[in-house]
Amino acid sequence: MLNDRNVNLTMLCDFYELTMGNGYLAAGMEDKITYFDLFFRTVPDGGGFAIAAGLEQIIDYVQSLRFEPEDIAYLRGRGLFTEDFLKYLENFKFTGDIWAVPEGTPVFPREPLVVVRAPAIQAQLLETYMLCMVNHESLIATKASRIVRAAKGRTVLEFGSRRAQGGDAAVVGARAAYIGGCAGTACALSDQMYGVPAGGTMAHAWVQMFDTELDAFRAYCRTYPTAATLLVDTYNTLQSGVPNAIRAFDEVLKPLGIKKCGIRLDSGDLAYLSRKARQMLDEAGWTECTITCSNALDEYLIRDLLGQGACIDCFGVGERLITARSEPVFGGVYKLVAVEDPSGAITPKIKISENVGKITIPHFKKLWRFYARDTGKALADYLTLWDETVDDSGTLEIFDPEATWKRKTVYDFEARELLRPIFLGGRLVYEKPALGQIRDYCAAQTDTLWDEVRRFENPHRYYVDLSQKLWDIKNDLLHAKK
Amino acid sequence: MLNDRNVNLTMLCDFYELTMGNGYLAAGMEDKITYFDLFFRTVPDGGGFAIAAGLEQIIDYVQSLRFEPEDIAYLRGRGLFTEDFLKYLENFKFTGDIWAVPEGTPVFPREPLVVVRAPAIQAQLLETYMLCMVNHESLIATKASRIVRAAKGRTVLEFGSRRAQGGDAAVVGARAAYIGGCAGTACALSDQMYGVPAGGTMAHAWVQMFDTELDAFRAYCRTYPTAATLLVDTYNTLQSGVPNAIRAFDEVLKPLGIKKCGIRLDSGDLAYLSRKARQMLDEAGWTECTITCSNALDEYLIRDLLGQGACIDCFGVGERLITARSEPVFGGVYKLVAVEDPSGAITPKIKISENVGKITIPHFKKLWRFYARDTGKALADYLTLWDETVDDSGTLEIFDPEATWKRKTVYDFEARELLRPIFLGGRLVYEKPALGQIRDYCAAQTDTLWDEVRRFENPHRYYVDLSQKLWDIKNDLLHAKK
Repeated sequence: MLNDRNVNLTMLCDFYELTMGNGYLAAGMEDKITYFDLFFRTVPDGGGFAIAAGLEQIIDYVQSLRFEPEDIAYLRGRGLFTEDFLKYLENFKFTGDIWAVPEGTPVFPREPLVVVRAPAIQAQLLETYMLCMVNHESLIATKASRIVRAAKGRTVLEFGSRRAQGGDAAVVGARAAYIGGCAGTACALSDQMYGVPAGGTMAHAWVQMFDTELDAFRAYCRTYPTAATLLVDTYNTLQSGVPNAIRAFDEVLKPLGIKKCGIRLDSGDLAYLSRKARQMLDEAGWTECTITCSNALDEYLIRDLLGQGACIDCFGVGERLITARSEPVFGGVYKLVAVEDPSGAITPKIKISENVGKITIPHFKKLWRFYARDTGKALADYLTLWDETVDDSGTLEIFDPEATWKRKTVYDFEARELLRPIFLGGRLVYEKPALGQIRDYCAAQTDTLWDEVRRFENPHRYYVDLSQKLWDIKNDLLHAKK
Repeated sequence: MLNDRNVNLTMLCDFYELTMGNGYLAAGMEDKITYFDLFFRTVPDGGGFAIAAGLEQIIDYVQSLRFEPEDIAYLRGRGLFTEDFLKYLENFKFTGDIWAVPEGTPVFPREPLVVVRAPAIQAQLLETYMLCMVNHESLIATKASRIVRAAKGRTVLEFGSRRAQGGDAAVVGARAAYIGGCAGTACALSDQMYGVPAGGTMAHAWVQMFDTELDAFRAYCRTYPTAATLLVDTYNTLQSGVPNAIRAFDEVLKPLGIKKCGIRLDSGDLAYLSRKARQMLDEAGWTECTITCSNALDEYLIRDLLGQGACIDCFGVGERLITARSEPVFGGVYKLVAVEDPSGAITPKIKISENVGKITIPHFKKLWRFYARDTGKALADYLTLWDETVDDSGTLEIFDPEATWKRKTVYDFEARELLRPIFLGGRLVYEKPALGQIRDYCAAQTDTLWDEVRRFENPHRYYVDLSQKLWDIKNDLLHAKK
C-alpha cells in the first residue's frame, strides 16, 4: 500500500504523459486547449448497463496535484526532459474544466463519463489516474449491482479484502460495492474512511482456539450476546456445528431473552446445508436466527441457490465481487476529441482504427437522458454538440448511429443532462454527495431502467444515439480520415 | 488511493479480527501463542507453479503497525469493545516471529509461504493485509512469469496502470511484474518508488494534436532523437503510419547518424501488420528499428503471434497482466495450525471441511526443497515438523500424501530450507534484497524447474510431500475430527 510511504499521487502517471508533455512544450503547444472524453466500450459480463463510480477519488486527486522537489529530481535524473519543462512542472496546477456524470449513475458504452477541457500537458497528465479510479470503482459497483439484484432483497455483504488486488482495491472497492447496493463490508478501514458499515464475527481460528466447538460458541455468545453469529463449519456443519450453536444459544442467549442471533456457513453445499440448518434452528425455537452464507459466491450461484429454495438471509461475497472475477477489467479509455484555437473555435478530432470498435465519437459534447414523463423510465441517451439543446416539449426522432435506418420517435419525455460541472477554471464547483446519498441515487436510477435492460444475460441494448449534427461531423471526419 | 489521506494501514483489517481479539482478551487468551500458515490451494491458470511475492510490503506493514487515537475513537464508537481491549490496542506492537519464503521463489499449493508465531490477538490481526499483499503480488508475478516465458527472450513491458484495480494494484503490481520477469513498466511512480524501469513515448493524442501525422512524427523525433518510438496506427498503419514514420526517421534521424528507433502497433492484426511493417522498414534501411506491439496481449496470444512468424521485438502488456484477467484471484488463505502452552508444548490444530481441498496441514513446520546435485534441478518439496531435520547425505523415500502407495526414493540431493526468519521477537532480522536481486533470483530459481513443470497447460504436478511424522499427525487429527 502506498500511503505508508507518503507518496505523491501526481507521479502515478504513465511515463508517456511526461514525454508528451515535454514534447508539447518544445512544440509550443503547452497552452493549446484540448478536450478529452473518458468512456468505455463494453459492459462487463455482457450486462445491459454499468454503474459509474470513482468521481470522489478523482476530485481528491485533482485537488492535490503537485510535483514535489523529489519528483523533479527524479525526472531530471532520467535525462529526457528540458529544464523549461521541469520548471513548468514545478509550477504545475490544474487550471482546466472537468464535467462528469454523478457517481451511482447507470451508464452505457461510448458515452462520456468524464470530460476534461484543459491545456494539453494538464489534460494528458490526468489520464492514468483518472482511468484507474473510474475503471476500478465502476467495475466493482457494476458487479455489486448484479450480485445485489440476484439476491432479490436479501442482504449482501462485501467480504473480499484479503483477495483484493492491493490495499486500494480493498478499501475503495468496498466503497464501490456499497454504491452498487451492498449493505456493508468486512473491511474496518472502509468504515472508518468512507462510512461503509463494517461488521464481522469469527474465523475458523476462533473455534480452533478453544478445547471444543461448544466452548468456542459459548464464549462468543457471552462476549457478544446481541451480535452472535457463529461459524458452524469448522468440523462438521450438521452433526456438530449447528447442534452446538443451538446449545450455546439455549444456554447463553435464552436466559437473557435474546432471540436474534445467527449462524454462518462457509463450505459444503449451501442449498442443502442451509435448508437443513433452518429446519434444525426452527425446531429448536430459534426462528429469528439468520443464516449467512459465504464461499465463492457471485450473481450466478446466488440465483441458482435461491432457485433451489436455499434458506439464506445474508450473502457474504468475497473474491468474485472484489476482483469482479468473471470479468476483471472495466475497459475505460481517455481519448482526445477536440482542440480549441486561441479564438475559441473548437476543432473536432477523431481516432480511426482498423478495429471499428476503437473509433471515437469526436467533439465537445453534451450527454442527455430522456425519461418518459408517465412512467419515469429511461427511454434513451442522446449525445449532442456542446452548444445544442434538446427541446423536450414536443417529439424528437432519434436514430441508431450504426444503422441509421433504425429510427424511433420519442414523445412526452423529459431530457436531463447527465454531465455536471465538477471543476471550472481549476476550481471545484461540485458539492460531493454523502456516500449514502450516492447509494440511494444509484438504486433509484437503476429502477428507471426497464427490466429488459437489467436482464443478466442478453439484455436489451439501450439506445445511445447521436444528434444529426454530431453524426454528420463524425461521418465527415471518418471519410476525411484525420 | 489511500495515501493522500494519510491513512493508518493497521485498520486495513477485517472487522472480525477485532471482534475476535476483544473476545480472546475477554477469555484470557491474549497471551496464548498461536501459529498460522499462509498458503494457497491452486496455481492460477492451471499452471505448474506460482511465484511468491509481497514480502517487502508485509515487512513495511508489520514495522508500522500501531493504533492511532482516532482509530481507538472509531472503535469505541462502535460500542462492541471493552475498555480493556481498547487499552490493549493503544499499546499494540507486534512481538512475534515471522518466517517466509523469499520473494521470487517458485512455490506450490499447500506449502506455507509465510508462518506467523505470535500471541493470538496479534497473529489474527495480520491476516487481511498479509493475505491481500501476498495474494496480489504473487498473482501478478506468476502471470508475468507466464507471459515472459511465452515471449521467448523478447522484451515484455508492463503497460496496465490505467486498468489496474486501484492505485496500489498499478504501482505494486508493476513491481510484481518486474519480479516475474518484465523488463519495465509504463508507470512513473513504480520507477520512482521501487526502481522498476519506466518508459513510454506517445499516445494517439500526440498524433492528433498536430495538423498531420507526419508533423507529429517529425516533432517527436526532433525532441527525442535517441528514443523515438512512433505510434503508427492512429489513421492507417500501413498506408499512412509506417510510411510517415520512415519519412520522419529519414528526415530527422538519418542526418544525425542515428539508427536505433522504433514503431508501435496498437490495433489491427498484429501478426500481419508486424510482418508488413518489418518488410517496409527493412527495405527503407531501418533494420535496427524495433517493433513494439500492444493490444489485449497475454501469454496465449503472444505464443500464437510468434508461432505465426510475427516480427515483434517488444510486447507491451496491459490489462491482461495487471489484473491477471484470465484468473484474477490468487486464493491464499491464513489458517491456525498450532497453539503453544506456556510450557512451550505445541499442540497441532486442523481445520476439517466438507470440501476436502479446504483441509489444512497442521502443526508448526519446516519447508525443504530438494535439488539434484548433478543437474541442480528441483526434485521435490518436503514438509516436516519444526524440529525435524533432513539428512541429505544418503537416500530418502518420500510419498504422495494423498496416494501413499506412490513412493519415490531421492538420492544425490541437497535439501535447502525455504522459510527464512523475517521477524524474531518482533525485531526485523531479514535483510531485504534489492529488487533487481529478487528478479534475478526468480529467473534462476525458475530455471531449476523441469520443463514439464513449466508447461502452460496440463503441467506435471510437482511433488510436495509430508514427512512420515507430519503425515501421521495429520491423519490422527482427521480421524479424531478436532
